[in-house]
Parts: sequence; structure tokens; C-alpha cells
Amino acid sequence: MSSISTVKDRTELLKWISEEYQGLNGTHYDVMETSPNALEFSRLVHISRPVLIKNSEAPDAMSRWTDQYLIQKMGNSKISVAVTPNGRADAVTTGPDGKQYFAEPYVQRLTMSSFLAALSSGDSNSREEVRYLQSQNGNMFRSSYFDVHDAEDEPSEFEALREDVPSEIPWCSEALDRPPDAVNLWIGDSASVTSIHSDPYENVYTVIRGAKHFTLLPPTEGWCLSERVYPHSTYMRSPTTNKLVLDPSSSEVPEVRWSSVTDPTVPGALPPEAHPIHITVEAGQTLYLPAGWWHFVRQTQVTIAINYWYDMESRGMVWVWLNTLRGLLEPPSGNDVVESAEHS
Amino acid sequence: MSSISTVKDRTELLKWISEEYQGLNGTHYDVMETSPNALEFSRLVHISRPVLIKNSEAPDAMSRWTDQYLIQKMGNSKISVAVTPNGRADAVTTGPDGKQYFAEPYVQRLTMSSFLAALSSGDSNSREEVRYLQSQNGNMFRSSYFDVHDAEDEPSEFEALREDVPSEIPWCSEALDRPPDAVNLWIGDSASVTSIHSDPYENVYTVIRGAKHFTLLPPTEGWCLSERVYPHSTYMRSPTTNKLVLDPSSSEVPEVRWSSVTDPTVPGALPPEAHPIHITVEAGQTLYLPAGWWHFVRQTQVTIAINYWYDMESRGMVWVWLNTLRGLLEPPSGNDVVESAEHS
Ligand SMILES: O=C(O)CCC(=O)C(=O)O
Ligand SMILES: O=C(O)CCC(=O)C(=O)O
Repeated sequence: MSSISTVKDRTELLKWISEEYQGLNGTHYDVMETSPNALEFSRLVHISRPVLIKNSEAPDAMSRWTDQYLIQKMGNSKISVAVTPNGRADAVTTGPDGKQYFAEPYVQRLTMSSFLAALSSGDSNSREEVRYLQSQNGNMFRSSYFDVHDAEDEPSEFEALREDVPSEIPWCSEALDRPPDAVNLWIGDSASVTSIHSDPYENVYTVIRGAKHFTLLPPTEGWCLSERVYPHSTYMRSPTTNKLVLDPSSSEVPEVRWSSVTDPTVPGALPPEAHPIHITVEAGQTLYLPAGWWHFVRQTQVTIAINYWYDMESRGMVWVWLNTLRGLLEPPSGNDVVESAEHS
Repeated sequence: MSSISTVKDRTELLKWISEEYQGLNGTHYDVMETSPNALEFSRLVHISRPVLIKNSEAPDAMSRWTDQYLIQKMGNSKISVAVTPNGRADAVTTGPDGKQYFAEPYVQRLTMSSFLAALSSGDSNSREEVRYLQSQNGNMFRSSYFDVHDAEDEPSEFEALREDVPSEIPWCSEALDRPPDAVNLWIGDSASVTSIHSDPYENVYTVIRGAKHFTLLPPTEGWCLSERVYPHSTYMRSPTTNKLVLDPSSSEVPEVRWSSVTDPTVPGALPPEAHPIHITVEAGQTLYLPAGWWHFVRQTQVTIAINYWYDMESRGMVWVWLNTLRGLLEPPSGNDVVESAEHS
């Protein structure tokens, strides 16, 4: 391992740190046959490495989540679905003016029945519009649910499914000494991907049907992702053509710092210093994805998942450490990049 | 808080990190009425802040540790005691040649009875030789004790006291999923201090008699301690005068990186960016001192303590983080320092 004394600038420092981290940790991840107890999970959170739990105790109810069951349970109530032309919600996209934007999806409200019909129609990779149920705002339960302890007070679009979904994971809430901040339902197919990003959450992610393919990088390898700063935009439906068009936000909306790596699984997309970990989470399995880890996520078939986001510990050193790793990078503008400026 | 983007060099980066850390954590420490359970302790280790436990369950036996009891139990067996002319074992001292050295103590083997007599003789602050029982090598129990599970195999100078001292702390071993690496007995008085340093151990420190005064700095404030690199030396007894003299080690013994701050409690000894935490641990109380925290320790009366060192977690980010904080500093030689080079 090179010596830190030869480090000349921030990029070299980030490289040195990520080399140290790799040297100690490699790309190993633990695989557990069953869920940890609270104490075991607390230890795992301290280590902050991904863990695959092969037989998670996802409630039986969820194994009955056939299309028919979901349609019948949800009836005519509307759910919010992300719609994009390319399956890349919350990702960097080229706008009509040729500039690069961070694009939020158009949100359409439709019934479970029409959503699932859209998912299973035709070739998923040649659709004009891609739908992904990925609201990420605690669409099943959000923190206010735990504050008020009164489900009535907190309407969820998925009210009808709540009886199948535990509002928290006992070993996780006990280890972290708090309820989840958000519980999210995800339903999508091979046309959708989630671009690489990190969250300040301890993430416990259970696949109910299908399989999720995660590509992970440790927090120390954020510098490998060529983050840049992009103007914000949202897809809207053109009133004239009814097609999705990208609508740049007003200049008051803050720019968004995001990776310019579209697909980290493509050979050469990452520098050789990056050590991605590929984990497939099958139905019935759960991934513990520690706070600050970078993740790129996709599926090759219709996949349903539920995940629990728990606020990470803000006391102590971890938050400062993640902030330092992030702060050492100064991403250039995504629309003002000369090739030689990459990784600088 | 200043922006990291204005950080120009390593010292400024260390200052920025310690300011971030202070901003989030301040100088608060938790005080608990009773010992945590394993899960609670695991959470505290993750937060990595000092915790004072007011009513620790130190075994009753230890409350019976009067001088008379210790002397009677230990009989004629010899114990290894650190002897220095100034009460500063493992500290920076000026040698006979005027150069600065890191000095290890002379180790004398004497009976408990003569050791305790020496402690209580005359004015503790005007002795020619200062004795401190501080062997720090697991003088009560060391890791091999837990490997072999056979006390017979691992002779301890304090064999006779082992029946009073638990070999591990259940909530601690369970939280950390390992036995202690070392269990140490400390007996000293106001003539001895322990110079400021940090250890890669989770430290659980119980005072049996007297009181310990800890001055603590978080790992992020190591840059405030003006570390320098000193040649190694050991006190020996002059064969001619029988007095303690400093014996510089051969040049093969590696130099020692150590703080040049002799007493961080003296006003002005630390830069204004340092935020020391002062904690007094009374008899019957226990301090949890997280790995990597800087500590300066003294007592104003005869004080007996037992501490448990547990290896810190080496997986994940914590080790790398401590290494990075340490690596960003490049201490100059302690014998080649111009004033303007301080903190550089
Ligand atoms: O399942 C996905 O598409 C993304 C999941 C994700 O980003 C998360 O759980 O934070
Ligand atoms: O009690 C003392 O003098 C020092 C204690 C110490 O340095 C430790 O427990 O690591």
C-alpha cells in the first residue's frame, strides 16, 4: 500500500483512503442463513458492510402477492407511478436543448390493475414509456406513522396492503433504537433501473417476487463515480403531443450532484481502482445495505420489493466521515466538462 | 462552519474535520446510572463517545481491597512496578545530553507490601523515585488466558488477586463478540501521570479506590497535540550511583511518535480548536473510553483501578478513519523543531 506521505492533493488522498479500505476489507460480504438478532445486527451496523440474509422472515402474506391478489386488494384506488421515456427516473438525461439534466420522473396516478397491465404488455425494452412504482417517500409507512401511532392519520396509497406488511423490522428497530423513517414498496421490470447513488440510511431491502441485482461500491469509492452538478428538471406530459418532455426547473431549484456513470456494470465505466460488489437478492432474501454505500439497482423480470430505511446514527464519527469523503470531491458542472477534468 | 472547499492543505483539512465533529457532537458525554446491557453497549461503541457509568457492578471483592488485604493476599510474591524520577513513564523526557527522548520506565520487582509502603511514604510530590504499577501488558489477564482457558498456563504476577477480578465484562464481551485482549491493574498516586496518547482498544476502566481524572480529546483532535518523533530510551539504574539514568536505545529501536504536550490541562497547552473533556471517575464508577480517543490520566490520591482492553473492530471504516486522521499528520522530529513548524 502506498504511503500517505506521498499524497499530493485531494484526489490522491481519496485514492489512498480507498486503497486502505480495500486492503482491509476486500470485496467480501457476509451471507447469513437467517436474520440476525438485534445485537448481531448492531454489530453489523458498526462494521457497515453489506450482508445478504438468505431466509429472511418476510411475512407469508407477501408470498401471496400475485398480480391478481394485488389488483383485488387495491381495487380502484390510485397509486403514484414514476413514468419516464427511458426507465431512468432520478438520473442524468440529455434534455431537448442537448444539455445534461438531473431528471425527476413524471408521476402518474393509476390503478394497480392498469399499472400491472402496463408492466406486462409487450417487450419491456421497447416501450415508449416506462413505469416504475418507486415513490421512495415511505409509500407504505413514513416516520409520521410511528409518531402518531395511528394508521388512520397517515393515509397511504397502499392502505389496503398494509395488513400484509410489517411496519418495522423488530431486530432492526431494536438494534438502531428507533422506528424506520420510511417503508417503501417497489414494483418494476427490466425496463427500469435505479441510477447509482447513496443514501444516509441504513437500508434493509427484502425482495418479495423476482430478483434485484445490486451493484455496490463502498463510501470510500465515491470518487470513482465522476460526480457532477446538473440542473434539475422534471418530466411532464406535453399538452399538445401528450408525450413526455423534459421540463427544466427554474434556476431557484438547487442543482443536483449526481454520478455521471450511467451503468457501472459496463466494462470500463469505472476506473480500475473501483471494486464493485455484485449481489443478487432473490425472492425471500434480504439485503442489509449500510448507510453511505453506493448502489445501482436493476431487475430482469417483474420484481416486487419492500425496503426499510432507518436514519443512520448522526452522533459520533460516521456522519463526519461520510461528509469528509463527500466534501473532498468538488464535482464540476455536468455541462462544462472537458475530458481531462474527469476525476479531478 | 467553514466550507471544505477552502481547505488548502492537510492541516486545514484536519481542522475542518475536527470542526465538523465538534459541531455535531460538542463535548457532551453520556452518564448512565448502571451498566448497559450488551445491545446498549454495542450501540455506544458505534457512536464511539465516552460514557461514564456511575454504578458499575465492580465485584464486592474489590471493595475489600484495603492495603492490608492486598499485602496479605500477595504475600512475598514479586510484582513489576514502573520506576521513574518524575512519575512520567512512557512519556517524553529530556535526556542527560539535553535531547528529548521517549522514555520507558525502569521496571523493579518488589512485594506488594514494599510497593504500597513506598506509595504512602512522605510527600508524594517530592520523591526522588516515583513508582507506578502500570504494566499494561495484561498484568491480571491477557489474551492467551482466553485462548487456553486454563489459568494455570498463564502465570500472572497477580494470581492471588484473580479470584476477586472477573476475567471479562459480560456485556462488553457479548457486545464486541470477543474476550478482552488485556485486563490491567493500575495502582499509583499523585506523583504519577499517564501522558496523553491513544490506543486501538475499546477501554472499559473501573476505579476501585480513589479517583482518576481523565482529560479526553476525540480522535479528530489529534492534530492539536503537536506529535513529534522521539528516539527511544529506557530508565536504568546506574551501577555506580544506583540512581535512575536515561539509557538511549540503539538506533535499531524504532523512534516513537508521541505528543509533545506534557500536560494538556495547563492553560494554553492546547490550541483553541481543542475541546478537551474532563471526566473524574470515582471509586465504583466505570468509564467507557472508545478506541482512538486521546487520554491524559492522573490521580490526586492513592488510586487503584482495573481496566479491560478489547481489540477494536478492524473491519469496515473505523480503523481506516483513525488511520487517515493519523496519517494526515506528519510529525517532525522532536529534536529538530523550530517554533514555526508547530502544528504543521
Ligand atoms: O430497488 C431499486 O430500484 C432501488 C432501491 C434503492 O435505491 C434503495 O433502496 O435505496
Ligand atoms: O490509569 C492510567 O494512568 C492510564 C490508563 C490508560 O492509559 C489506559 O487505560 O489506556
